[in-house]
Amino acid sequence: MREKILVTGEQMKSTFLSILHHHNFQGERAETCAHIFTQNSLDGVYTHGVNRFPRFIRQIRKGNVQTDNEPELVDSSGATERWNGRLGSGTNNALDSTHRAMELASSHGIGCVGLANTNHWMRGGYYGWEAAKSGFIFMGWANTIGNMPAWGAKNSRLGNNPLVMAVPYDSEAVVLDMAMSQFSYGTLEANQISGEKLPMIGGFDEDGNMTKDPEAIIKSERSMPIGYWKGAGLALLLDIFAAVISGGDAVFQITKRKEDYGMSQVFIAIDISRFSHFTSIGNIVKDVIKDLHDSIPISEADKIFYPGERVLQRRKENRENGIPVEGKVWEEILKLNITRQDEESGV
Amino acid sequence: MREKILVTGEQMKSTFLSILHHHNFQGERAETCAHIFTQNSLDGVYTHGVNRFPRFIRQIRKGNVQTDNEPELVDSSGATERWNGRLGSGTNNALDSTHRAMELASSHGIGCVGLANTNHWMRGGYYGWEAAKSGFIFMGWANTIGNMPAWGAKNSRLGNNPLVMAVPYDSEAVVLDMAMSQFSYGTLEANQISGEKLPMIGGFDEDGNMTKDPEAIIKSERSMPIGYWKGAGLALLLDIFAAVISGGDAVFQITKRKEDYGMSQVFIAIDISRFSHFTSIGNIVKDVIKDLHDSIPISEADKIFYPGERVLQRRKENRENGIPVEGKVWEEILKLNITRQDEESGV
Repeated sequence: MREKILVTGEQMKSTFLSILHHHNFQGERAETCAHIFTQNSLDGVYTHGVNRFPRFIRQIRKGNVQTDNEPELVDSSGATERWNGRLGSGTNNALDSTHRAMELASSHGIGCVGLANTNHWMRGGYYGWEAAKSGFIFMGWANTIGNMPAWGAKNSRLGNNPLVMAVPYDSEAVVLDMAMSQFSYGTLEANQISGEKLPMIGGFDEDGNMTKDPEAIIKSERSMPIGYWKGAGLALLLDIFAAVISGGDAVFQITKRKEDYGMSQVFIAIDISRFSHFTSIGNIVKDVIKDLHDSIPISEADKIFYPGERVLQRRKENRENGIPVEGKVWEEILKLNITRQDEESGV
Repeated sequence: MREKILVTGEQMKSTFLSILHHHNFQGERAETCAHIFTQNSLDGVYTHGVNRFPRFIRQIRKGNVQTDNEPELVDSSGATERWNGRLGSGTNNALDSTHRAMELASSHGIGCVGLANTNHWMRGGYYGWEAAKSGFIFMGWANTIGNMPAWGAKNSRLGNNPLVMAVPYDSEAVVLDMAMSQFSYGTLEANQISGEKLPMIGGFDEDGNMTKDPEAIIKSERSMPIGYWKGAGLALLLDIFAAVISGGDAVFQITKRKEDYGMSQVFIAIDISRFSHFTSIGNIVKDVIKDLHDSIPISEADKIFYPGERVLQRRKENRENGIPVEGKVWEEILKLNITRQDEESGV
């Protein structure tokens, strides 16, 4: 087991912010970026929070993420807009697009933003929480580099394109945030290290056999779409929609670059406060969740959760106790907290 | 093996229409209804075409489907509208709502229709083909009666809520039409009859064990969500969205009635001809499909298909050769071709 240390949200955010400043990412947008990475970690999504921060900095150093760039309006058509992310910070571009979809929804009932030429949004669920907490229904998705085979195929030409759906619930939200692969590469790696098989089939080995062996899947780079042919189809359509609505690159174009940048995303918001039945919507959602909670669990000790419910628990725990971070990850991050000039001159 | 006969599309449609007329379903709306049931059969989706027609007539006889009723606008807010389906014919209500979403998209770029209090739309893909063939991106979904357990639950409180995504492609369309359960009850029944196990886990037996035995799943009424916990989450969110956007019933309310009527649906269309990059969109889709087709198949003899590709093949075959129908299904249908008065007086 790897050693973990506890870092408070405040410590984490100020560390991230200092590192961003050292990489010429300044002002309010750097603040927002540091906040999103921290919030994702507070919410327990470490793979797209603290654990991913070093890779984000490497992307800045490579020039794949151009932190000075803000998104630019390309095309406007009523409630639908296309924006060019100009390879700016993916978290900021996605949050801007979420806010823009919300504005369009406030004007038109529904709003849709296609964002081309952007970077990894890290955890899509963040934008779902953001919109739903402000009273909007939200649906958004992203394409990725190819990492899943089409159904019946050997090579991985589909992205595991994450889909987010969110709706206000009580004072919080129900937020679904799911990639189209059955297991994330983070989970595969964790199981590889612990030597455990996956609980379900998670992909193919190099001979095309379905397997629960995480190592074989990492080697073949052929993870399993959720629901086999169904998730493969859904991933394809999410990709086509993202490329068409944004005018940006599809999975096959990102895959050709061999690096995970310059992707396309879609953000749809609906302003439920404009509905004539607005005052009853809170109860509609509460009643559905109550019915879900009333499910009879297979094991008596279990509880049935709605998507996002355990995020709230984890957020509370991590706020109280600090965010658990693998010691060597935090060490790596602290080493980034120097200027590039310092680093290049070997200081 | 059950005996099949071949029925031409024209024969089938005129038979359906005559039966609808005998059930006081008249005029253009009856014509449309007969057309949709026939087209679904031509396209090879027999479970939601010819095989389901007798059940549709039973629903009319019971009064669950009220064929005189047309949908009524309840709430209008820019590009978003809510309609009351008034328990009318589900196929007609869904087609009207698809057209209305397309009209709203023509005016606003994107359009969203929530349809409450409607009936089974049969095959959701029909509406995807309709919108995409007219040049729109389409996304729609429906809720159903409870037939899948939440993840970790014993009882089935989730619907297998089908989702449709469609986009124009060449002179045709790419159309994904998928329920949130790994296998339809139609497939389970077919495997039960043939005595074959399912190729993948398809649900739970009555003790809560995952199983490939179709009979055990039919008995437990606990089919497996695609991607296990992921499909369960997606089904829940599609249901909440449908109930909130339409103001209609959620799965738990339909389930209480113990019959599959009065459901909620969502129809979203985007008018891609309004985009400034419209002329390049055709090539975006073609390039993605070309890349998919270039996948290396696991078995050399196999071909990789996009969603909807095999529908086109089957449509062509069935137009040329006639639609294969199980003899006893067609017999049952022919028996419906009498007036209710005739039937009630024992003629």
